[in-house]
Amino acid sequence: MSQPSSAPPAIRAIDVIRKKRDGVELSRHEIEGFINAYTNGDIPDYQVSAWLMAVVLRGMTRPETAALTDAMLHSGEVLNLSSLPARKVDKHSTGGVGDKTSLVLAPLAAAAGVAVPMISGRGLGHTGGTLDKLEAIPGFNVNLPVAEFRSVLAVCGCAMIGQTAEIAPADRKLYALRDVTGTVESPYLICASIMSKKLAEGIDALVLDVKTGSGAFMKNEQDAVFLAELMVETGERMGKQVVALITDMDQPLGNMIGNALEVVEVVEVLRGAGPEDLRELCLELSGWMLHLGGVAKTVSHGKEQSAKLISSGKALEKFRQMVELQGGDARVIDDAKKLPQAQHLTQVKSANAGYLTLMQCEQIGTACVILGGGRERKEDSVDPAVGIVLHKKVGDRVDVGEPLATIYYNAESKAQRARQLIEQSCEIGIAPPAKRSLLHRIIGKSGDRN
Amino acid sequence: MSQPSSAPPAIRAIDVIRKKRDGVELSRHEIEGFINAYTNGDIPDYQVSAWLMAVVLRGMTRPETAALTDAMLHSGEVLNLSSLPARKVDKHSTGGVGDKTSLVLAPLAAAAGVAVPMISGRGLGHTGGTLDKLEAIPGFNVNLPVAEFRSVLAVCGCAMIGQTAEIAPADRKLYALRDVTGTVESPYLICASIMSKKLAEGIDALVLDVKTGSGAFMKNEQDAVFLAELMVETGERMGKQVVALITDMDQPLGNMIGNALEVVEVVEVLRGAGPEDLRELCLELSGWMLHLGGVAKTVSHGKEQSAKLISSGKALEKFRQMVELQGGDARVIDDAKKLPQAQHLTQVKSANAGYLTLMQCEQIGTACVILGGGRERKEDSVDPAVGIVLHKKVGDRVDVGEPLATIYYNAESKAQRARQLIEQSCEIGIAPPAKRSLLHRIIGKSGDRN
Repeated sequence: MSQPSSAPPAIRAIDVIRKKRDGVELSRHEIEGFINAYTNGDIPDYQVSAWLMAVVLRGMTRPETAALTDAMLHSGEVLNLSSLPARKVDKHSTGGVGDKTSLVLAPLAAAAGVAVPMISGRGLGHTGGTLDKLEAIPGFNVNLPVAEFRSVLAVCGCAMIGQTAEIAPADRKLYALRDVTGTVESPYLICASIMSKKLAEGIDALVLDVKTGSGAFMKNEQDAVFLAELMVETGERMGKQVVALITDMDQPLGNMIGNALEVVEVVEVLRGAGPEDLRELCLELSGWMLHLGGVAKTVSHGKEQSAKLISSGKALEKFRQMVELQGGDARVIDDAKKLPQAQHLTQVKSANAGYLTLMQCEQIGTACVILGGGRERKEDSVDPAVGIVLHKKVGDRVDVGEPLATIYYNAESKAQRARQLIEQSCEIGIAPPAKRSLLHRIIGKSGDRN
Repeated sequence: MSQPSSAPPAIRAIDVIRKKRDGVELSRHEIEGFINAYTNGDIPDYQVSAWLMAVVLRGMTRPETAALTDAMLHSGEVLNLSSLPARKVDKHSTGGVGDKTSLVLAPLAAAAGVAVPMISGRGLGHTGGTLDKLEAIPGFNVNLPVAEFRSVLAVCGCAMIGQTAEIAPADRKLYALRDVTGTVESPYLICASIMSKKLAEGIDALVLDVKTGSGAFMKNEQDAVFLAELMVETGERMGKQVVALITDMDQPLGNMIGNALEVVEVVEVLRGAGPEDLRELCLELSGWMLHLGGVAKTVSHGKEQSAKLISSGKALEKFRQMVELQGGDARVIDDAKKLPQAQHLTQVKSANAGYLTLMQCEQIGTACVILGGGRERKEDSVDPAVGIVLHKKVGDRVDVGEPLATIYYNAESKAQRARQLIEQSCEIGIAPPAKRSLLHRIIGKSGDRN
């Protein structure tokens, strides 16, 4: 491992590990050298996992976090979308239950003239993933090569694909290692992972939806705010406009959970209907995307404009266009029966009367995973048809025997386990709970709200 | 990685890593399962290195440390020496410069009727290793199979070998991983590594020599005491009598550093001569070994008995017997020229007059490594002939031009670098420094001193 002392000095993995272990700040040169050597296979997994654990327990400074993000970003291709005249804006969510906003936002912002080059992930654990939802649409191809991604984007204004081999390969390698070494839970590593991939999309601005509550990875708001600030600062250091909305994930977003069911709800929102909370969050996020995308003077103007693009049907038409360009069967928009259908359904009824005071949101997500709608391990496949439709949300009045939820399922035993989880996760009380607001806070200085 | 939930539940590596990361105490079952699975190759290096880093940064409780030691101890063969009537006592030093006490102590305690089954290590970094010193004696075989080790021990009362494949294989695997992942420096891991190997020797009692000062791994006394207490407690939990002496390593022990040179000094001490500090420490440690070995009522009695065994020549005869039984050329005892001889020697002379106030002990050790007498990496070979003889120790008066040390060397360029280091490491002042005592403290309740 020793290296000749000629300039520029090569880094020694053991020195980088020891420094981080001892709480000494690493230089940009050291972080870059370490990440590049790992990506090239010159440093073994066992050294990197020791370093990752030291990062989890010692943390990182802002310059270290920026250097790590930068090294991961430049480990692969950085898209150059400067040939597109529109400003490029993306949205990223830290993940939750029933969070299908990306499918609404990409066509909505594109309909307003913003370019949305969106590279998304799959569901893992109790949360859903955008790619799994898109693939519920028969034929929809999320694996476009970069050239085709560009051309869909140029024609339609938005395109939605999965991570490619060319984009941030260091992140793919690091993420796989973090997953099996207990080193996922570090805001610094989460920030670098998210931001390196998003900045590789060649965007000008980014709207982050950082979830907090019982269905989020960051259960408490303080952690969510810390991560949000870290990502905003890191993005700004790299010359991007970034804003983060801290939003509620203490109960599922919208009423439908499960891949095909969520596509149904997306179409409802794009038709101007759909549940209030989902609609409100989509308009809020869209307002920011339009504002940062330079097509709305303020966020409020952006929201108004978005509402108009929905009521005029233009957002839905943009969605249809994207589905068609990516090979999907656009007939699902007008006929939900063209989506995968579960064979059975069964209702979960309330045993008590009163108000729904609490929903253990993560358990609802887990119930959907158990039905087959999500994956416990990366290599699992998902059943797009299954899921849960909620008939009551927190604060609603409930009578004895009234349905709380409907389970869409293909296997009886799984439905029973899901039913138990849903029953356990709903609490009925005698008084309505205090209302939690959907938007908790806004982090970042990229523009005013009015 | 998931396991069926039948009893006894198999451990999941990721859970063990996460718990330690989060500062949750691991159960004996979890630690045992983790170490066994690693030793068997069922858990990869990259998971273990993440766990090791979490241990370095989170520490371990006493029960965890005992469980880890136990799991490592039982990863291989535990010698059963109960057929030997004598009590089995070993000594272990945490390593220093010029520390050749093991070569004196094994025959000395054996001459008193204590059985000393000693499994030692090689030098690494600036410190020397017992095996390298023994191998300076032509023909001496430190790689005896366990059966032969037993028979030498039965005949002679002492035997000195290197770690075998059968003893604590978990430690060998873990140590190699720790060495390259920045996870050596944890008192809990050091304790488990030392104690698992020592307890696998089938001993009844153990005397630990924990070094502190500029030539020790634990530079400050607080760290040395912490490690000593941990090892004593861990050994006692496992039913052994353990005592730890915190001793000075702020300058080399004795006057000779280098493998063949140290054998010369060992013979001097066994003849009743040799430098005062080395002789004093050998008697102190031997006093404890005889006391814990049940052949001396008190430590003082043990020291007196040891002094007599030296003056009667019995200790030296035991050394001769052991050398012969292990295939070594015992003529080196009477004729030091039979030991490997360096081709050249050169003196380092004092540029100033005054008192030798300080010796950077680690640098003296490093100077010997540079000459070829130690190894910077495990795979390096050592030159037994080279080394350094000190003519002055801290507190001695020095005149201008008086020799401070003699360098024994085989390569001119190496001698020059060693000379520089020795010159830099010696400080000459106008007044003698306060005398540091050789024995700082005794840790453990296994017997009185008087």
